[in-house]
Amino acid sequence: MRIDNLQYANWSEKIFRQMRAGGVDAVHVTIAYHENFRETVLNIEKWHRWFEQYPELICQAFTAADVTAAKAAGRTAIIFGFQNPSPIEDDIGLVAVMHRLGARFMQLSYNNQSLLATGCYEAEDPGITRMGREVIAEMNRVGMVIDMSHSADRSTIEAAEISSRPIAITHANPASWHAARRNKTDAVIAAVTSRGGMLGFSVYPHHLQGGSACTLASFCDMIAQTAGKFGAQHLGIGTDLCQDQPDRVVEWMRVGRWTKQIDYGEGSASDAGFPPMPDWFHDNRDFDRLQSGLRATGLSDPEVAGIMGGNWHRFYADSFGPA
Amino acid sequence: MRIDNLQYANWSEKIFRQMRAGGVDAVHVTIAYHENFRETVLNIEKWHRWFEQYPELICQAFTAADVTAAKAAGRTAIIFGFQNPSPIEDDIGLVAVMHRLGARFMQLSYNNQSLLATGCYEAEDPGITRMGREVIAEMNRVGMVIDMSHSADRSTIEAAEISSRPIAITHANPASWHAARRNKTDAVIAAVTSRGGMLGFSVYPHHLQGGSACTLASFCDMIAQTAGKFGAQHLGIGTDLCQDQPDRVVEWMRVGRWTKQIDYGEGSASDAGFPPMPDWFHDNRDFDRLQSGLRATGLSDPEVAGIMGGNWHRFYADSFGPA
Repeated sequence: MRIDNLQYANWSEKIFRQMRAGGVDAVHVTIAYHENFRETVLNIEKWHRWFEQYPELICQAFTAADVTAAKAAGRTAIIFGFQNPSPIEDDIGLVAVMHRLGARFMQLSYNNQSLLATGCYEAEDPGITRMGREVIAEMNRVGMVIDMSHSADRSTIEAAEISSRPIAITHANPASWHAARRNKTDAVIAAVTSRGGMLGFSVYPHHLQGGSACTLASFCDMIAQTAGKFGAQHLGIGTDLCQDQPDRVVEWMRVGRWTKQIDYGEGSASDAGFPPMPDWFHDNRDFDRLQSGLRATGLSDPEVAGIMGGNWHRFYADSFGPA
Repeated sequence: MRIDNLQYANWSEKIFRQMRAGGVDAVHVTIAYHENFRETVLNIEKWHRWFEQYPELICQAFTAADVTAAKAAGRTAIIFGFQNPSPIEDDIGLVAVMHRLGARFMQLSYNNQSLLATGCYEAEDPGITRMGREVIAEMNRVGMVIDMSHSADRSTIEAAEISSRPIAITHANPASWHAARRNKTDAVIAAVTSRGGMLGFSVYPHHLQGGSACTLASFCDMIAQTAGKFGAQHLGIGTDLCQDQPDRVVEWMRVGRWTKQIDYGEGSASDAGFPPMPDWFHDNRDFDRLQSGLRATGLSDPEVAGIMGGNWHRFYADSFGPA
């Protein structure tokens, strides 16, 4: 089982064919950054069209069993997720509606304060809000995974504690390896993984030691060390691949409609666009290389198989429906 | 199998318990008259709350198999439908979205011209529109039933012809029995039933010969005669029961937001509210009486069983998913 638990590509038949060429059985795709409910439904409609157009390449997955079936049929299973709770607006009833439409991961915040939790770029993190506690309980009830990838530390640790089910950081790396704002302290990773939650490793250059120049060996050694600290069974991949996106998309991610200024997020005025990818990971055909790199670290074959997808698949089976 | 294929009650625990007391295995409930997409989703959210509150009484059904399972579990299966295409607005992509959320019937029009077809109160009926043809094809693809209960004759006959799958008139009676604007000519009934479609008989007093004074014998004789003309296998019940609704609701049905005047629809200035129900049908506990009335007409036991629900169940199995 090979799973990438976070991509936001500029989707095309080319990319869907690369998923098949790379043997990728499932991809968790972001369908909302700042979109409200209706806009997110429009994005779902776009995916419905792609499922109708490319039935031999992709299909929607609602359950772990759907992923297994897609693999058997030689298709890549697509799982919807949100990087912001904006799609549910101020309406807790939309959690179940969105779950029915296929949303299986939702970040409680993106970079800023949300109605539910605090983002990693805020100066203050007051923790999970009143509505946040209610939404966590509702997500627990229906089986939608709480994703804290872009959230601040206190909010993340509180979410892990408040949630009755394991949560996830779908795409980030340990801050002990590369001290980026989006990477996670050991305390945060421990709060998530010690309760059965998952960490997905990102290859987005701003999350990498050395940025775009990061080597495959350094990345894989970091994974092996993280496995030693927190247990390989809690680890997976969430590349954050934004293939073929124009730079206006990273601006949309950072700025949305919340400011009239430019916010550079992890970038800067002189480095505002998408950074170049490391030379060992450009698209979905590069997972063999990643798998070889993990094997070279001395991780066992079962550990590598788990990190490459087995762990996400098990987590899906435990998480994608009522407990 | 006992199915009522149209109700719009003022839902409450009392009514859900009456469904169980009446042995009603499934009810097609209207969740939109003039609501737009977001408003219809709010109505779905209300139903989600009721499913959570009364799991021993009701559950949502997406398929005929769900109805069978509900019956076995002693619960009433609830099936969503729209009496107007307003929930899909001008967006054909919302057909698949609404199908996923459970909508299984959609009228192509209510009383007025819609984007898709003509309502029975319009002076002119130009037939199925350009968008109407596209939406019929999409409904055929996903498995959402075209319901022409409130549509005008030409539009209804064209819908039956254009649709690649059988369509329905969920709640109306033959105009040959009672010449109401909402009742259907033999030509319309033949266009629907000759292609495998269904007619559901209404007990809404404006659709009854003699109105509220209509006798059970008259109603059941009419059904038996319709069975003789068109075949009992194409017939079912769609009571149009609007139990416990205040009169402002019938005004909403008729007026929506399309006029600043009062439109009395099937009523009149002196009879503007909901008419009193006939003395033999007040709520979901009265289906035994209806069944006895049908048996008294000389219809065979299998014919009666089909009309009381078996025919709708077979139609659901053929209609509620891709062909």
